[in-house]
Amino acid sequence: MTGHGASPQREMRRRNLSRVLHAVAEQGPCSRAAVAARLGLTRTAVSTLVEELLRGGLLTEQGTTPPGGAGGGPGRPGTALALTDAGPCGLGAEIGVDHLAVCAVDPRGQVRTRARLESDGRGSAPELVLTRLRTLVDEVAQQARGLGLRPVRLAVAVPGLVARGTTTVVRAPNLGWSDTDIASALADPGERGTIETPPLVEALPLLVDNEANLGALAELWLGSGRVPRDFVHVSAEVGIGAAVVLSGELLRGARGFAGELGHVPVRPDGPRCGCGGRGCLEQYAGEVALLRAAGLRTDGARDDALTALAERAGAGDTRARDALEEAGTALGVALAGTVNLLDPRAVVLGGALARFATWLLPALERELRERTAAPGVPPALVISGLGAEGPLLGAAHAAVRVVLDDPLSYLG
Amino acid sequence: MTGHGASPQREMRRRNLSRVLHAVAEQGPCSRAAVAARLGLTRTAVSTLVEELLRGGLLTEQGTTPPGGAGGGPGRPGTALALTDAGPCGLGAEIGVDHLAVCAVDPRGQVRTRARLESDGRGSAPELVLTRLRTLVDEVAQQARGLGLRPVRLAVAVPGLVARGTTTVVRAPNLGWSDTDIASALADPGERGTIETPPLVEALPLLVDNEANLGALAELWLGSGRVPRDFVHVSAEVGIGAAVVLSGELLRGARGFAGELGHVPVRPDGPRCGCGGRGCLEQYAGEVALLRAAGLRTDGARDDALTALAERAGAGDTRARDALEEAGTALGVALAGTVNLLDPRAVVLGGALARFATWLLPALERELRERTAAPGVPPALVISGLGAEGPLLGAAHAAVRVVLDDPLSYLG
Repeated sequence: MTGHGASPQREMRRRNLSRVLHAVAEQGPCSRAAVAARLGLTRTAVSTLVEELLRGGLLTEQGTTPPGGAGGGPGRPGTALALTDAGPCGLGAEIGVDHLAVCAVDPRGQVRTRARLESDGRGSAPELVLTRLRTLVDEVAQQARGLGLRPVRLAVAVPGLVARGTTTVVRAPNLGWSDTDIASALADPGERGTIETPPLVEALPLLVDNEANLGALAELWLGSGRVPRDFVHVSAEVGIGAAVVLSGELLRGARGFAGELGHVPVRPDGPRCGCGGRGCLEQYAGEVALLRAAGLRTDGARDDALTALAERAGAGDTRARDALEEAGTALGVALAGTVNLLDPRAVVLGGALARFATWLLPALERELRERTAAPGVPPALVISGLGAEGPLLGAAHAAVRVVLDDPLSYLG
Repeated sequence: MTGHGASPQREMRRRNLSRVLHAVAEQGPCSRAAVAARLGLTRTAVSTLVEELLRGGLLTEQGTTPPGGAGGGPGRPGTALALTDAGPCGLGAEIGVDHLAVCAVDPRGQVRTRARLESDGRGSAPELVLTRLRTLVDEVAQQARGLGLRPVRLAVAVPGLVARGTTTVVRAPNLGWSDTDIASALADPGERGTIETPPLVEALPLLVDNEANLGALAELWLGSGRVPRDFVHVSAEVGIGAAVVLSGELLRGARGFAGELGHVPVRPDGPRCGCGGRGCLEQYAGEVALLRAAGLRTDGARDDALTALAERAGAGDTRARDALEEAGTALGVALAGTVNLLDPRAVVLGGALARFATWLLPALERELRERTAAPGVPPALVISGLGAEGPLLGAAHAAVRVVLDDPLSYLG
């Protein structure tokens, strides 16, 4: 984040500019005095920092401070500071098993434009999927520019393992990808490239991360205090992943492969799993297992099948409800082990599973209650308000937050 | 660690004194120039810090720098700096199910004196056990003083859950304790107190931690590079605990209850466990389960029973070997889930299980290999060199490291 050999003065400035931006982000529109009070800095120091952020277009001034707020800083009484909605933006992208999605988020955290494309990830070569993604990203970037925004970074959520600190998808079983470098594929459409090279994507710094990780960060950043700073976030699309957040920090693991909840053994002698193990959670609560147990087809459109499952469960269909109860039990067993190992304050059910919470929760809660070893109440079970949107929003927010964390990367 | 309102100058001095001590601790006897080079400080700055540490008795000078070492600092050519072995010491204590142990460790990390007492923790009231411990601690403290050492802190390892940041054992099932505050019990022998109050224990700052946590820290601090900075440490006495170390930091969990590997479900419909769950790891690889499966008595002396198990396994006894293989399989299933969740670089087998490694490992390795979801080799399996000594050594080192981390707490 910080350059080598940067002067201590510049580092201090970088840090203080970032603190001012985060203070405004957390408080909403507020006066210079309120920022100074929150950060424990002098009004003079805050005014200097604010001037730089106003000049650079990261802050704007609004007419008046909100009622009850403290007065404005010296020289500008009555004005409130707000994050800009017309400067930089982050682009988030999601590579799903059956779709691609891209959106642009401004520094206020608002989604300003988005696009989605049905795309069969399993039946297409990675190069083709990434060429489609490149086109979609460029489309959203053009729209964002039309709104006066400048894309500063692209973050991509993938349903697979990403080697820590790289842009390489080491393995994405539900896409059939292995060792796919997103950066080079996005930069170079390769032999399939019949589309004119859009220059934008190549110029943008790229961040690639696992969808469960980005979904968890979205909960942390957008959960509005519903989610504590120590939690396990369960994310499901076709596979089941998870992310662990401790003291507000994502636990990535030594190689970046932490969070493979879907491959926690539930019944050691259970059905063979694609990972080489047996009886993994995915064999009981993964989408294919769930649909099959409910007597639904697994070879058609995912959304149709999941909607049918929700409808049957809602109508009281025994087979559908039994399948969901069995999945909830398996989730509870795997999560009880997770809770006993990690002692989080909450378990957040996100991704595609969130919509089935009604039928999953009773069994899940029972297992957690019975199997939590520590005294006191087991961790809270929270249903994600973001659901399947989490990874895409997390990606876009991760991209735009770079500006808040390191304003000099934008201001120069 | 640092006082509120301390001046920035004092904080800087505290930090630099600590860096010098850690540099000498890591390098062994070395010159001022070597310390300066390692820390990127000037020789003059290092000399000032070193003088203060020499005056305060935390460093000593030895006759000559080691061959090949850099020259001495200004004014003292040829002398090498070493940590003192005659100043402060840390006291470590272990409350075992059938014994108590205490030792004193000097700043060089050497155990200088120790004592052990057979003590039936399950059959005695907590107050009685802690009165015994108080006497044993005082005995070791007197011995340490006789060696010219000054005890600065007591750290106690317990086989149970300790609420984060407190000295309270919330639950220790194998001792039968719950909500036992070690600090007040050590300070006040209560109505049972027929022993003269030893003043020392009351005056010492106290740290209480789970035995698996302290065993893991011992591996991290004393493992001589055999153990990476991301590992899961399995610790077994009567129960099975674990501790997770990520980037060299212990993962404690929101309430301090992380690491309950013994209660990770292995077979969800398995035997009922004391925690309220079913088929927990402890039901397959815990000491009682293991001895029972091997056809050995579980109501006699623990050491005798474990020695008998090792002898039978060594002699090729089928029942003993089958019991150990079954335990290794269960450990492998629970650890595979742990590895898939946390992606550590190594799994360290410590505590009482280390001596059975020969018979546990084949099954454990097989399960880990087959069930690790991430590509590449599964994490290394390392047998602890400290074995059952880990928690006691970890406690004593935790106590003495406070002086290295915060020298002003000793120097004033």
